[in-house]
Amino acid sequence: MSDDASAIPSPSRRQLLVGGGAVAGWGAALALGVDAAVAAPSSAPAAVPSQDTAGLRGASTVPFHGPHQAGVTVVPQAHSTFVALDLVDGVDRDALGRLMRLLTDDARRLTQGLPALADTEPELARRPARLTVTFGFGPGFVASAGGEAPGWLGPLPAFGVDRLEEGWSDGDLLLEVASDDPVTVAHAVRMLLKGTRAFATVRWLQQGFRDAYGSVPTGTTMRNLFGQIDGTVNLVPGSVDAEDLVWIRDGWLDRGTSVVVRRIAMNLETWDELDRPGREQSVGRRLDTGAPLTGTREHDEPDFDAVDAVGFPVIPEFSHIARARSADPRERFLRRGYNYDLPPRPGAISESGLIFVSFQADPVTQFVPVQRRLDELDLLNTWTTPIGSAVFAVPPGCQEGGFVGETLLG
Amino acid sequence: MSDDASAIPSPSRRQLLVGGGAVAGWGAALALGVDAAVAAPSSAPAAVPSQDTAGLRGASTVPFHGPHQAGVTVVPQAHSTFVALDLVDGVDRDALGRLMRLLTDDARRLTQGLPALADTEPELARRPARLTVTFGFGPGFVASAGGEAPGWLGPLPAFGVDRLEEGWSDGDLLLEVASDDPVTVAHAVRMLLKGTRAFATVRWLQQGFRDAYGSVPTGTTMRNLFGQIDGTVNLVPGSVDAEDLVWIRDGWLDRGTSVVVRRIAMNLETWDELDRPGREQSVGRRLDTGAPLTGTREHDEPDFDAVDAVGFPVIPEFSHIARARSADPRERFLRRGYNYDLPPRPGAISESGLIFVSFQADPVTQFVPVQRRLDELDLLNTWTTPIGSAVFAVPPGCQEGGFVGETLLG
Repeated sequence: MSDDASAIPSPSRRQLLVGGGAVAGWGAALALGVDAAVAAPSSAPAAVPSQDTAGLRGASTVPFHGPHQAGVTVVPQAHSTFVALDLVDGVDRDALGRLMRLLTDDARRLTQGLPALADTEPELARRPARLTVTFGFGPGFVASAGGEAPGWLGPLPAFGVDRLEEGWSDGDLLLEVASDDPVTVAHAVRMLLKGTRAFATVRWLQQGFRDAYGSVPTGTTMRNLFGQIDGTVNLVPGSVDAEDLVWIRDGWLDRGTSVVVRRIAMNLETWDELDRPGREQSVGRRLDTGAPLTGTREHDEPDFDAVDAVGFPVIPEFSHIARARSADPRERFLRRGYNYDLPPRPGAISESGLIFVSFQADPVTQFVPVQRRLDELDLLNTWTTPIGSAVFAVPPGCQEGGFVGETLLG
Repeated sequence: MSDDASAIPSPSRRQLLVGGGAVAGWGAALALGVDAAVAAPSSAPAAVPSQDTAGLRGASTVPFHGPHQAGVTVVPQAHSTFVALDLVDGVDRDALGRLMRLLTDDARRLTQGLPALADTEPELARRPARLTVTFGFGPGFVASAGGEAPGWLGPLPAFGVDRLEEGWSDGDLLLEVASDDPVTVAHAVRMLLKGTRAFATVRWLQQGFRDAYGSVPTGTTMRNLFGQIDGTVNLVPGSVDAEDLVWIRDGWLDRGTSVVVRRIAMNLETWDELDRPGREQSVGRRLDTGAPLTGTREHDEPDFDAVDAVGFPVIPEFSHIARARSADPRERFLRRGYNYDLPPRPGAISESGLIFVSFQADPVTQFVPVQRRLDELDLLNTWTTPIGSAVFAVPPGCQEGGFVGETLLG
């Protein structure tokens, strides 16, 4: 793929000859036209974002290079697509090095509003709208690289609530492609996947969304499709806690992290049967403000000891927030989830849910204990079902001239 | 549905009793909690958009009432979902009147940032982000209403390029739900569909997107996933031409229009094999600016007579714009299409295309002749395939107290 031209071949004779009997006229004209266009000043794109998006949201960029991959801590974009790939047989350490150099180069360009190296629709690269591309490696990737896999890299322990489908689980290589513009995401996913074709096949692809940019104030906690404010208790990127709990500190994953991606189906039909107070009790928070049932504001600390007039807890002990809380300050992670809403299958009203996404230095010690408590008893389990689950090692970022994965493959 | 409470039942005993052996404790607590919450000041939503979106994009509204349905001519929102419904057996004129009163009321509220009458997630209604809801009636709807169907209301004539799938075609009732915020669209679709359950089933649902709000300058012609500027030659809402060509002038459709919705699969894989000059020749426009090959700016008039040094047309005679042009000024319509991009099916790289949408007073005289010329020979046919097609009568808007469809059903 270092040869740009190879990805942009000339029109084949077959392509020039579509149209049956009328071919001769336009076939000749087109062929000549092609020659003329090649000779004439070309309309090939300039290597900078075009003027028409300057100062607009579309022109916003997130720096690509740095100690960490940028997509982990950037304020979540409105749209994100998660793609898990399976490596094809015979892809060895050398091939993985070529693949990651190629993907890094495409990601570096696209995130800065520049066409990918063999970009076939360069104009669609001109509005990055805070595009980030984040890479994660599954166990198969690390094994093929001949690297040492951390102990937590693999499927999570089984939870009783899980109804996992292979088609939404696991994978060798994760790409998370996120931007405030859905056209940008579609284009970037397409360009990146083209680069992977010789190396891997798509295992699953999940498209998610949250509040449009500018729709609600920046920093507003997202609402999921149950209408709940989702993600109030979260690590704050850049805080001392987040620095400590998100980033890994040694080996090839130094300054990297791990990501858990779980697809949680939400049964909006049965959720509808529950009234508003019942919904608030099941979560332990008010639906309007997101405040705990013992508080008035979203970020008020819940008072799990508060009781009502007859002595029952104000926040039910099996509510989601009561079950999710931990006495261990290390049982925390950085959530960065997205809603999903696919066209319903025949006979269904909806196919909706949440792409749960969490970043943490160690999913087994930070995420699993919380999930185990929720698995044992969480009122929300009545209306939610995990149908996909995957864990990836997220390598550190790279500097100019480097590539993501170089600490494993370099 | 005039009885709000019917749609928000109390939690059933089954719901309260999930959780097996541990039920007694939290079951009792939750039951009491529910009672307490019902007695206490409720967190039911206020009937106005919340303060936190005031002045933000999320608070933008499009007036609902008026002579025309608002969604026809509003500047296209970033996201749009098209839902076609089939009426269930036995839905008669009276039932259709109830259905359209109900849907109108929900649409009126939701578009103004207010919860639907039986809204189960009222907070998600607070950020309309220019939400519009547009209704269209298929032949089955008009027949059940005992109304007179215009001659053009029915499937379009068959085109040779069509590979129509029943699952993307036709239908009795269309809802187009469009907003700059994808969360708003998901919620509004859900609320509207809940109101239809006793009357109809979902036949197909198509989710589309174009440039995010603020990503490119307002008024920029959208780009499709081929990277083409798509829709340059278009009626301008409010212009004399548009007034004349979009709106119907008599009968129950007076001040209404028709809509053609076609799902056009775009083969990005074979498109990739065509180089940039070839792509420009196939369309007749430059990819960067959208200018005709004889011009320099997007809206320059194409010169179909211009020839190159050896006498061939600069704009190939079978290019898309050459085939689409008409000498008859009535063969024009208002396009308002959206990209689609679904997760690829197993083994595929993409499932992408365009939801082609056009509004016109008469699709048979305005749209069909253009489509026939494109069907006969349009270079773009090599890479595009219509897989769905539907035509609906779009009734006029209504005033306060009225409902959409009253001219047919009232």
